[in-house]
Amino acid sequence: MAKNLEISTLLDYYGMLLTDKQRETVEYYYNDDLSLGEIAENTGISRQGVRDSIKRSETILFEAEEKLGLIKKSEMLKSSLEEIRRNIDIIDEKNIKVYRSDVINESIKEILKELGKLDEII
Amino acid sequence: MAKNLEISTLLDYYGMLLTDKQRETVEYYYNDDLSLGEIAENTGISRQGVRDSIKRSETILFEAEEKLGLIKKSEMLKSSLEEIRRNIDIIDEKNIKVYRSDVINESIKEILKELGKLDEII
Repeated sequence: MAKNLEISTLLDYYGMLLTDKQRETVEYYYNDDLSLGEIAENTGISRQGVRDSIKRSETILFEAEEKLGLIKKSEMLKSSLEEIRRNIDIIDEKNIKVYRSDVINESIKEILKELGKLDEII
Repeated sequence: MAKNLEISTLLDYYGMLLTDKQRETVEYYYNDDLSLGEIAENTGISRQGVRDSIKRSETILFEAEEKLGLIKKSEMLKSSLEEIRRNIDIIDEKNIKVYRSDVINESIKEILKELGKLDEII
C-alpha cells in the first residue's frame, strides 16, 4: 500500500462508492496519514481488518476510474475551459480597448458567469 | 420492472459498472424490448434468473446515479455550454457585422473548437 496523492483524488471522485467503514479507514490512512495500528485503535477493527479494508477500497477506487474515467474526463474538461477562458480574455481586452461594445461586454459577462458555474460542477 | 427511457440513460452512464451478464439482460430488456422469456432463451438463464439479474442491475444503476450524480451533472454542464455557445454567437454576429476584428474572430474559432471537444466528452 503505497501512500500517494492519487488515492486522495480517487476518494474525491469515487469515495461515495465505498461503505462508511471503508471510507473511514482509507481516509484515516491516506488523508490523515495514520498508521494501520492507529486506525485499528480508532475504529475498533483488527490491524489485519484495517489492512484488508484499505486494500479492498483501493481496488474499488481504481476499478471505478478504469470503468468510468471521471478523473480523466475532468482533466480534459478543465483544459478546454481554460482555453475558452483564455480566449474570452482576449476578446474582452480587445473590446475594452478598441470597440467598447455593450453587446459584446454583456455576452462576455454571461459567458464568465457560466464558466464560474462549470468550475463548481467539475 | 417498468420499462422506461431512464434506464437507457442510466445504462449509457453506468453500464460499465454491471457485469457482462447483467448488462446483457438489462440491454435485451430495456433497449431491445425483449420479454423475460425471450431473454431466458437467448442467454440460457432461467426466467426467474433473468428477472433477478434485471432487478439487481436496476438497483446498481439507480444507486450509482444517487451516489455519483453524473446524469444530473451532465445536464447542468450541457445547459451552461448552450448558454456559452448562445453568447458566442451574439459576439460573432456583432463582430462580423460591425467590428470585423481578426483577433476576435480567431478567438471565437478557438472557443468553438473547444466547445466541440466538450460536446464529445460530456
